[in-house]
Amino acid sequence: MASLKRLLVGSPIRTARLAHERLTKKTALAIFASDALSSTAYATEQILLVLAAAYLARNATSFAHVVPISIAISLLLVVVAISYRQTIHAYPSGGGAFIVAKDNLGTLPGLVAGASLLVDYILTVSVSIAAGVEAITSAMVGTRFAGLHNHRVWLCLFFIAFITVANLRGVREAGAMFAAPSYAFIFSFLILIVYGLVRYYLNPGIVPVPNDTDLKVAEGYHSQSLNLFLLLGAFANGCAALTGIEAISNGVQAFKQPESKNAATTLSWMATLLIVMFMGASVLAYVFNVHPLEHETVISQIARVVFTGPMSWFYYVVQATTAAILILAANTSFAGFPRLASLLARDRFLPRQLANLGDRLVFSNGIILLAIFSGFLVWAFSGDTSRLIPLYAVGVFLSFTLSQAGMVIHWWREGRMPPSSGNVKAHSGSGTPLRKAPWRRYLLINGIGALATFVVLMIFIVTKFIHGAWIVVVLIPLLVLMFLRIHRHYVDVAQQLSTEGLVGLRPIHHEVIVPISGIHRGVIAALEYAKSIAPHHVTAVYVNLDDEATQKLREKWQQWGSGVNLVVVASPYRSLARPLFNYVDRVRRSSPNVIITIVLPEFVPARWWQNLLHNQNTLFLKGALLFKKGVVVTNVPYHLEH
Amino acid sequence: MASLKRLLVGSPIRTARLAHERLTKKTALAIFASDALSSTAYATEQILLVLAAAYLARNATSFAHVVPISIAISLLLVVVAISYRQTIHAYPSGGGAFIVAKDNLGTLPGLVAGASLLVDYILTVSVSIAAGVEAITSAMVGTRFAGLHNHRVWLCLFFIAFITVANLRGVREAGAMFAAPSYAFIFSFLILIVYGLVRYYLNPGIVPVPNDTDLKVAEGYHSQSLNLFLLLGAFANGCAALTGIEAISNGVQAFKQPESKNAATTLSWMATLLIVMFMGASVLAYVFNVHPLEHETVISQIARVVFTGPMSWFYYVVQATTAAILILAANTSFAGFPRLASLLARDRFLPRQLANLGDRLVFSNGIILLAIFSGFLVWAFSGDTSRLIPLYAVGVFLSFTLSQAGMVIHWWREGRMPPSSGNVKAHSGSGTPLRKAPWRRYLLINGIGALATFVVLMIFIVTKFIHGAWIVVVLIPLLVLMFLRIHRHYVDVAQQLSTEGLVGLRPIHHEVIVPISGIHRGVIAALEYAKSIAPHHVTAVYVNLDDEATQKLREKWQQWGSGVNLVVVASPYRSLARPLFNYVDRVRRSSPNVIITIVLPEFVPARWWQNLLHNQNTLFLKGALLFKKGVVVTNVPYHLEH
Repeated sequence: MASLKRLLVGSPIRTARLAHERLTKKTALAIFASDALSSTAYATEQILLVLAAAYLARNATSFAHVVPISIAISLLLVVVAISYRQTIHAYPSGGGAFIVAKDNLGTLPGLVAGASLLVDYILTVSVSIAAGVEAITSAMVGTRFAGLHNHRVWLCLFFIAFITVANLRGVREAGAMFAAPSYAFIFSFLILIVYGLVRYYLNPGIVPVPNDTDLKVAEGYHSQSLNLFLLLGAFANGCAALTGIEAISNGVQAFKQPESKNAATTLSWMATLLIVMFMGASVLAYVFNVHPLEHETVISQIARVVFTGPMSWFYYVVQATTAAILILAANTSFAGFPRLASLLARDRFLPRQLANLGDRLVFSNGIILLAIFSGFLVWAFSGDTSRLIPLYAVGVFLSFTLSQAGMVIHWWREGRMPPSSGNVKAHSGSGTPLRKAPWRRYLLINGIGALATFVVLMIFIVTKFIHGAWIVVVLIPLLVLMFLRIHRHYVDVAQQLSTEGLVGLRPIHHEVIVPISGIHRGVIAALEYAKSIAPHHVTAVYVNLDDEATQKLREKWQQWGSGVNLVVVASPYRSLARPLFNYVDRVRRSSPNVIITIVLPEFVPARWWQNLLHNQNTLFLKGALLFKKGVVVTNVPYHLEH
Repeated sequence: MASLKRLLVGSPIRTARLAHERLTKKTALAIFASDALSSTAYATEQILLVLAAAYLARNATSFAHVVPISIAISLLLVVVAISYRQTIHAYPSGGGAFIVAKDNLGTLPGLVAGASLLVDYILTVSVSIAAGVEAITSAMVGTRFAGLHNHRVWLCLFFIAFITVANLRGVREAGAMFAAPSYAFIFSFLILIVYGLVRYYLNPGIVPVPNDTDLKVAEGYHSQSLNLFLLLGAFANGCAALTGIEAISNGVQAFKQPESKNAATTLSWMATLLIVMFMGASVLAYVFNVHPLEHETVISQIARVVFTGPMSWFYYVVQATTAAILILAANTSFAGFPRLASLLARDRFLPRQLANLGDRLVFSNGIILLAIFSGFLVWAFSGDTSRLIPLYAVGVFLSFTLSQAGMVIHWWREGRMPPSSGNVKAHSGSGTPLRKAPWRRYLLINGIGALATFVVLMIFIVTKFIHGAWIVVVLIPLLVLMFLRIHRHYVDVAQQLSTEGLVGLRPIHHEVIVPISGIHRGVIAALEYAKSIAPHHVTAVYVNLDDEATQKLREKWQQWGSGVNLVVVASPYRSLARPLFNYVDRVRRSSPNVIITIVLPEFVPARWWQNLLHNQNTLFLKGALLFKKGVVVTNVPYHLEH
């Protein structure tokens, strides 16, 4: 086991190397942006899936609404990106929604943001992996591997396992592994857009007749007329394009110095690329009259039309890089989830094991938890992206809203502070007191961001509630309750363990009990040990399972007892533990101020499999005795040779 | 968990009730004979499956050989039954093949017999359950539940689980549960035979045309001419009818007194019924020209032809009782396997846990092991009886042969002994020395039995080797090797633990180490305890994970150390255990004659789920320190309140 772990994960890394594990802007763009950019692979399709409901009701122009909806989403994206640039500068040590909301709005809103983000990270993995596998199975349509579509859940689980191992190895190695596919995706996607638009304007006749026998409609939608509610539903679905945009603000510390500046620049690059790619995909879907299908993604359909003849090999480049970026997009969460979980754990809202750095300087426990939860979701929703989407954006937009609202309070407080104690980073380099102008502008920008994301959140909950959003609406309060419960426990334990009121070490009165199963070297060693603790307070206890054996033991005791008192207890039901526990309880009642030490003789076989050949009574007794107050358990092992 | 166990298994039973858990002859017949009698449900079919290979090669009369083959098997059965009656009388305390072979031939042949029987018991469960489920799915042919055939593995596993629970409740309750179905099967099967023969002789025109599109051939056989090898293969397959006949001789002690007489009488009833039922089934298969089919058993086909019109409801009675007896036949093994395993365990050839009586006075561990192995076989062979049969009879006939050969030696030795020390049970009631006459006859009978079963064993191995018998031929020697390895370990442990050469208890020199993670009430309690063992030999060890925290600890130590030496050890890889172990090893090397006690402070949460919120470092340290020689581990628990 240990060597398997070493093979997969690598050798441990010294704590002293912690500071060196930082990312350049280019590598960071590959890691953090992959989530946001990869969403262009499915965001357009999610809009079309809702519009398909009106198409089913014979509204022939229904799919044309994808363009205005995409423009609205792009505007929202600009607002959110600008808002988050401000957060990065205000929180150079890493300002995720959790920290911003906690600092400015209080603990409870902070925990709500934390819960939202945890859920969001898990869904990012599930959705990205599912969409990546769909890109692969789309490319198989028409080949003899078309049946792969039926095994997508297993493919998803395989890829989750792969990324988990990569991340357990440590963040820089993982970054190097992901840079090439990220850039390959960006370039092939840009080529698709430019080449596709050029081909269309040169020859609009290449637009194919859509195949409506395989038409797919969003989960929970049926044939209906095109009304505002449907358009809002399509808009909400498309907002999946915005997910992941907050990842950079939460991970500023992973950047090389100067962290804030590098992070903000990376965020701008990312937002620009995202708008270009998302709008490009939506416009192409519109001009090529693409309809969402059960067995092939929208991007795959576009690429098949665009790249024909001598260029048809590039179709496979687009699908391969799309699959790669999507599967690796999950990596954003593998950086973000464990980091956020460790922040919550340090504040005692999650188990402290999540705050420990593993062998390879990563938060291994958080990585493993994320893999388990996201794998479960993929399995529960059969690896179908469109069924996972309704769960997705609630957490995202709730944390956006809380984060922006927190920033509004942040600027408001700063505006009311005297100049000398203001946030240094928020000022320009000049010595003149320019403070008043910027904080108002900053407050306004974040205020618009908060309002916009809150409105989208409401639209999302209203339009998607019955399609799955309710799960997240129920889950987030439950998570917050769990955080609070855990926190209460840790505070309570700290109080109970406090040395307050103690005055130095006190003496102890011993009573020693040695449970014996016969007389052998293991028992002799235990008796020797027991007598060394309290020479005149040792009792050997024997459970009578067989009168004949008991009689033999009494005779041998004459020779080996060395004056130690032997007590034989009855056991009508052949249990060893019950009569022994009853005896211990009697001693505790008769001498309440004494510490009872149970000295357990235990022989340790030389090989592990030999343990299977012996009753594990000692192990069981140890576990059960742990729960008795005033009882100390001592193991005297006797080591067997071979 | 505990209450689930009570619900399924019932309350514990006192040891004192052991003697009352005995069986009447009628109940014993139901339990022990169910295995042997139930084999009539598939034995005829196993013969036909081999003969089908010649039928495929256009030998139209191939299936007619089922009658002479069945007669040969019945003769063999008489020989074996008479031989086993002698064993029962010679071994009134229960003489399974293991005991008889061990007593007379030596330990190694005894172990071979033991291994054979264990394998046989497991296969009895798998084969019986699989055949029982086939009886159920046969009855579904032509109904809308015909698809049940595809879920037979799950059905098998369900029934194994059911019988396991019944047996964990205890043998008498299990017997009462099984008596009614056993007798219902016997009567319905006898009615089938009588009614079928009468109907045929009144109107031979009812014989149907066989459906050869669904024809099934035994696993591994293909179209071939009817030669001796094929006939021997068919004979070997049919010998499955003999399995289970030895169960009574192994379980004589489960009978009411006088055990031997009751057991022998039950065996005679059983053999008679078995011959009547098996021959009846084979003759009916012959006269009704039944061919083995993929989706319907031979018995089901016969019963469909026999019971028509107003009697057709009785078809379902036959199928239901057949299924019931087969599924409950597995029960024979649930009595025999744990009993044999406990005998082997008492002789130290298997883990001693198998010798322990459970809560309900049954050998629970053996019952559970049998359920696991037989369930695995059913799963591995897709619940197909004909694929399991080639594995089946090797173990059975190997143990028959060894048992009979052992009896030959038994009588031979008795014949050479002076009259006074002879086996009392083997004599007639008269006072005259008639000893010489019976022992020669007994020897002859068992000799014929040994020879006959040995010949069948050879036929079986030769004809079935490549079809699966090789698995058992390989497995039995491996099991024997395992027995010997386990035995060597137990003998070795007994020697190492022997008090030989010791003279009373010796004094101990202590060195006490208290690993601490800070200063709190749990640590204070541990330090108090450590000082009480060896006031001037206590060292507290702190692993430095963070220089700042270490500095704080050193300051607090001034107040709380009470003169105890504090050692701080470095940990470049953030491990707690490694630096601590290195320190312990250093102390061991510098003071080799000292007993090192590690006092581990451990705080015990009030609720189980709270354990998830704390590092399980103490548990891990306990486990790892157990393997260090000269190290005693003491747990000082500190109990949290809520």
